[in-house]
Amino acid sequence: MVEGPVTNGITDGGGAGALLRLMRDGRPRTRSELAAITGLARSTITQRVEALLGANFVLPVGEATSTGGRPPTQFAFNPAARVTLSADIGATHARMAATDLAGEVLVEHRDDLDVALGPVPVLEWVVATSHDLLAQVARTPRDLLGIGIGLPGPVEHSSGRPVNPPIMPGWDNFDVQGYLTEHLGGVVALVDNDVNIMALGEHFTQWPTAAHMMFVKVATGIGSGLISHGRLHRGAQGAAGDMGHLQLPHGADIVCRCGNTGCLEAVASGAAIAAKLTEQGLPAKSSQDVVALARGGSVEALHLVRQAGRDIGEVLAAAVSLFNPSIIVIGGSLAQAGEHLIAGVREVVYRRSLPLATQDLRIVQSRTGDRAGIIGAAVMVIDHALAPTQVDAHIFTAGQVR
Amino acid sequence: MVEGPVTNGITDGGGAGALLRLMRDGRPRTRSELAAITGLARSTITQRVEALLGANFVLPVGEATSTGGRPPTQFAFNPAARVTLSADIGATHARMAATDLAGEVLVEHRDDLDVALGPVPVLEWVVATSHDLLAQVARTPRDLLGIGIGLPGPVEHSSGRPVNPPIMPGWDNFDVQGYLTEHLGGVVALVDNDVNIMALGEHFTQWPTAAHMMFVKVATGIGSGLISHGRLHRGAQGAAGDMGHLQLPHGADIVCRCGNTGCLEAVASGAAIAAKLTEQGLPAKSSQDVVALARGGSVEALHLVRQAGRDIGEVLAAAVSLFNPSIIVIGGSLAQAGEHLIAGVREVVYRRSLPLATQDLRIVQSRTGDRAGIIGAAVMVIDHALAPTQVDAHIFTAGQVR
Repeated sequence: MVEGPVTNGITDGGGAGALLRLMRDGRPRTRSELAAITGLARSTITQRVEALLGANFVLPVGEATSTGGRPPTQFAFNPAARVTLSADIGATHARMAATDLAGEVLVEHRDDLDVALGPVPVLEWVVATSHDLLAQVARTPRDLLGIGIGLPGPVEHSSGRPVNPPIMPGWDNFDVQGYLTEHLGGVVALVDNDVNIMALGEHFTQWPTAAHMMFVKVATGIGSGLISHGRLHRGAQGAAGDMGHLQLPHGADIVCRCGNTGCLEAVASGAAIAAKLTEQGLPAKSSQDVVALARGGSVEALHLVRQAGRDIGEVLAAAVSLFNPSIIVIGGSLAQAGEHLIAGVREVVYRRSLPLATQDLRIVQSRTGDRAGIIGAAVMVIDHALAPTQVDAHIFTAGQVR
Repeated sequence: MVEGPVTNGITDGGGAGALLRLMRDGRPRTRSELAAITGLARSTITQRVEALLGANFVLPVGEATSTGGRPPTQFAFNPAARVTLSADIGATHARMAATDLAGEVLVEHRDDLDVALGPVPVLEWVVATSHDLLAQVARTPRDLLGIGIGLPGPVEHSSGRPVNPPIMPGWDNFDVQGYLTEHLGGVVALVDNDVNIMALGEHFTQWPTAAHMMFVKVATGIGSGLISHGRLHRGAQGAAGDMGHLQLPHGADIVCRCGNTGCLEAVASGAAIAAKLTEQGLPAKSSQDVVALARGGSVEALHLVRQAGRDIGEVLAAAVSLFNPSIIVIGGSLAQAGEHLIAGVREVVYRRSLPLATQDLRIVQSRTGDRAGIIGAAVMVIDHALAPTQVDAHIFTAGQVR
């Protein structure tokens, strides 16, 4: 059947997890209300609420108005039941956070860190920082729901391993998931590429009702994350959204680090603009340097950023015709150069895409900025770990020290 | 929350529809088994099974082995409870079918019909043929679950209206849904473009377990339908998959019927190849003429079909990097020219797409051929009308003459 997930909703109704899924909206409800909404027997509801109370996932939050007799207790989701850890690893810096189960950041930490050091030094930093963050929020590894990590390269999400990542020497096929689980006391670890987790973070916090969204990261490289029917579309190998190496018609003479010519990333990324500015006598090494020059009013920098927006728009015009999102969010460090990048994108997309696909299309700047990744990595963990069957496993092991 | 549909599964558990959704797999089950699977109270199950029996959606299908006492009755989904009608309207011909609730074609009919006649003559044919087909299967409009129709142009699925369809004069913004509902006794009518329904038909019958699929129709025009997480990805305006008007780098001098230059459809469609063959002294008016020449061994036709495959491959290479499907199905009349079209597609896609996205990618020919559309239109209706809340409405009105 085409709409499989709905069937799952009822077939896994046998556990407390499905009840928690409903309660994640945060509204307090009585046992009777839960029975009415779900159609489950009153005795089943009582049993499952007990299980969720025992695991601390829900709490009694006061009494409803009584219609006579003892007023019934209301229960609500408890976002403080566990914490998540999330890490957003960039090319040259890294950021980590601890969040609650509603995705609220409790504490965060940022460091300069070169991903090219290889997996062990970088993941040692992640593990050490994990312990620091847990200590800061006065929690132990037992309180950990899981850890989510975003990496700046292609990742096979199902196995948690990078696949031929161009700027991550030594990481190819490294078992990131296994390493984190082993070094953090058996915790659930989920790995994805940085753009996918940014898309999740921006969608969750800013555009939760947008069914079809595209998030484009423009920084040292260029990539995108796709949301279809409110879910991250990772594709068959987790490679979906990889637009940095699509060919521009007019870039045929520019060689890309991937070996091909004319790739969008080789023409319009922060690294490409920095190189062009340096050639023009304005030394720039990174996306950040380009942003600094643009904000300082350099006409050359502004011109190149706007042209990069147009080049990105050329590729996005095709993506818009194919994917027909209702919103495109432009993020990444180069988006912080102001309206020039997005103006270039809009100029081309609205001219080149099919009219039906652009009639209500919005193209906006990221609102979560450089926190999109850590929020998204937390959301990835929460959505996975609070899926019905996972919750039942949690309850089963509740009280045991991992 | 990102995975909304699962929550729906439990919150709408209040009706018989959710139970039917589970039973659509066709397996016979007893009331006790249904209670165990769903966690619903035994009394609730009894009540809902009664409702489904009353509406004929399930039937008693014999007795399970008893563990002592009277052996319990098993119930199973009844695909013969209702029929659907489906119509696949092409540029110059049309096909209709009546199917059961499992999507099996009971009877079908094909006619030459020019879509350019406008909506009223074409839809009059649909209504008349509907009555013929119902009579052939000895059913009345009361037995009709709904009608699904595919049109050869952009359609806003939610409103059931064509939007600026290039080869359908007079159809722009015509209320196809309203017309069919009015002329077929108030029946549910769903409208989509022909490629989306073909994608649904091919996915449902041939690749039901493929999470991410792309169906490409190559005929007079070129278009595609996308399946993400097992669901049709229509996009925000239902415009997703429109790849016929993406630009080819080397087609800049060829004017498309849409007004732009270098569109894939202007270079590689059946119509474009027919025009080239005619220029070369081999008269051809349609995709079908091209197929006849290719099958007859015309070297010119084979050469042009293979080159069209390569051009389609250029655009698909970008689509593969963005969408990362596990399978691409090539259908439409030009696909019947044999392996030449698909060989050209494979040649370019495997060379040009990112290695991660192609490592397990299959590119295959449509297996449903020219029946993909009518099967898909039926599946669209069945999936919609047997959604939990819809079923409850059916049961509510069961016994009333529409």
